[in-house]
Amino acid sequence: MSLLKDVRVAILATNGFEESELTEPRRALEKEGAEVFIISPENDHIKGWKNGDWSDEVKVDARVDQVSATDFDALMLPGGVINPDLLRRDMTSVAFVKSFFTDHKPVAAICHGPQMLIEAGVTNGRTLTSFESIRKDLENSGAHWIDEDVVVDNGLVTSRSPKDLPAFNKKMIEEFREGKHAGQTE
Amino acid sequence: MSLLKDVRVAILATNGFEESELTEPRRALEKEGAEVFIISPENDHIKGWKNGDWSDEVKVDARVDQVSATDFDALMLPGGVINPDLLRRDMTSVAFVKSFFTDHKPVAAICHGPQMLIEAGVTNGRTLTSFESIRKDLENSGAHWIDEDVVVDNGLVTSRSPKDLPAFNKKMIEEFREGKHAGQTE
Repeated sequence: MSLLKDVRVAILATNGFEESELTEPRRALEKEGAEVFIISPENDHIKGWKNGDWSDEVKVDARVDQVSATDFDALMLPGGVINPDLLRRDMTSVAFVKSFFTDHKPVAAICHGPQMLIEAGVTNGRTLTSFESIRKDLENSGAHWIDEDVVVDNGLVTSRSPKDLPAFNKKMIEEFREGKHAGQTE
Repeated sequence: MSLLKDVRVAILATNGFEESELTEPRRALEKEGAEVFIISPENDHIKGWKNGDWSDEVKVDARVDQVSATDFDALMLPGGVINPDLLRRDMTSVAFVKSFFTDHKPVAAICHGPQMLIEAGVTNGRTLTSFESIRKDLENSGAHWIDEDVVVDNGLVTSRSPKDLPAFNKKMIEEFREGKHAGQTE
């Protein structure tokens, strides 16, 4: 299949990403013909997290300060408790995330990934889910949080944890294929 | 010195606590004569975090579901990115934290520790600080966040990171010595 032919996807991550939440969406996107790029504030490689400890590295394709949201059609944000806690302190990464919303481009975020949506200030009035520990932070930011395996709101796809990856990948591919959504906005 | 003679302090923590943020406040409190108890949802031991990786264990004195805020005069919450992310999902731990505010007892929290204050719903209108990554979450919860080494607000003592520990310990001891504060409330 090639539902995502000519679709360029950025995966924004840094050290401490939950390994399966990066590798499985990447595989699902590439299987549909998307071009997928690992974008990070780090150079070269970033280290994953698996079963409660550090795991394998993945190669970084471009540093976040060397690219722009205009280079991509869609954005995917993996979780892991350490990864977004580091990313949200990097203002270039936060501005990169916000640009996808300004441009109405689809975004998929899983687990702790939605912490970056709080930091970018794009959650007010949106319906979404996340890892349960950050539910209150998302609600306090103005989001409507619901406990489902995958939530789709106008080009914004969110899921709770690695066990939701099959549902997450399916809806992510649908929304990334549809492209821009007027209701996907900052 | 024994500024804290007959003062019983609970340190609430679980796996992934930033090692120095538990051991140094404990040492400072015990030096002033306080009785300090490590309270956790876990039995036996919890594992620390140091220099970006797992570190030494500390002994748990009592499980959180076997104690009550009435057993203690004050509460201390260490940080570490993993520790409060686990703790805030444990409703017994969240209720335990809230009880100290209901009872007007002093509380000290450092780094990511204030995530537990968000979860307990006790931050609205309070002035505090934290690790910079959770600043927006605290502001969204109604807190007034300021960038100082230690912030004291009516029995609530907060600091940003391990480098603030000397200032944090000093103010924690002052507030714990003073005891209950009318303005320390849920």
